[in-house]
Amino acid sequence: MAHIDLGVDERKSPGINGLMQYRPETAKPLGALADVLLRGPNTLTPGERELIAAYVSGLNDCAFCRDSHSAFAAAQLDEGLLLVEQVRADRDTAPISAKLRALLAIAAAVQQGGRSVTGELVESARTEGATDLEIHDTVLIAAAFCMYNRYVDGLGTLAADPEDYGHAAQHIIANGYLGLG
Amino acid sequence: MAHIDLGVDERKSPGINGLMQYRPETAKPLGALADVLLRGPNTLTPGERELIAAYVSGLNDCAFCRDSHSAFAAAQLDEGLLLVEQVRADRDTAPISAKLRALLAIAAAVQQGGRSVTGELVESARTEGATDLEIHDTVLIAAAFCMYNRYVDGLGTLAADPEDYGHAAQHIIANGYLGLG
Repeated sequence: MAHIDLGVDERKSPGINGLMQYRPETAKPLGALADVLLRGPNTLTPGERELIAAYVSGLNDCAFCRDSHSAFAAAQLDEGLLLVEQVRADRDTAPISAKLRALLAIAAAVQQGGRSVTGELVESARTEGATDLEIHDTVLIAAAFCMYNRYVDGLGTLAADPEDYGHAAQHIIANGYLGLG
Repeated sequence: MAHIDLGVDERKSPGINGLMQYRPETAKPLGALADVLLRGPNTLTPGERELIAAYVSGLNDCAFCRDSHSAFAAAQLDEGLLLVEQVRADRDTAPISAKLRALLAIAAAVQQGGRSVTGELVESARTEGATDLEIHDTVLIAAAFCMYNRYVDGLGTLAADPEDYGHAAQHIIANGYLGLG
């Protein structure tokens, strides 16, 4: 049960969904931000960006965001959930591109704190072919999930069972994040 | 100098300003979120909400956000910058209401991580008269600044001198956060 009365059935509206119904004024920019970061035009694929979101949410130990964005990543990556789990378990050995590995290292630094992102980490990503915009968006995706994770857990919302996010993944792929709540 | 080429004069567009000019697609929801949280209709005053933002930014050691939002809080609180500095130095002894003190304790827990917000902290705020919406918005303001702080420092942007934020404060009070960038 959430720390405040959201006026919703949390089993039907777990995690951020109940919060977005409770406060539509903040739901709108929160949904718009997720949509442009994870679904907008980008040289990083939606699957890669969802993977960054799932990875950071795992580092923050936010079950709802970790499991939902893992499902959203899996549904949009050829390698599916196995790759997501490999990245979450050990990004150094997971079978991903050197560029994505370097971007995930930046995301992990952001999760620790903004000042943990060093010039060396950024140079490393650039050496592996990352553009300035990809580096920018990786930092902002990681920072944004440090917000979403704290929002979802700070208000004590319920998570769903990991296997329940498959339907939500199809909805997100079809409709994006703008109509949530 | 920022880690990426923002295409702006960072001395004229410090901190998040240069980032918002660099990426207008993400600037729009980021500005809209700040505006509804810090300036929208609320039983917490804009000064109180800016104080929460400045306090969390101080905990995250983000000089740009800490000093700018301290100036924005000071400009909208009768007690001015002295009170902001007292709160940042020691929220337990600062001359603020018991309700605001309890909300700042929730904000500090959010900064540590979402799971650090306990039912006891929430009950404490409620006992001091905080409403569910005030608790919700405190959690989301604190969470949002864990994002903004990481965004600003993760990309290595320049901060301005603390005394340079007074002009920005007048601009924010007059125009809000929607037209930044």
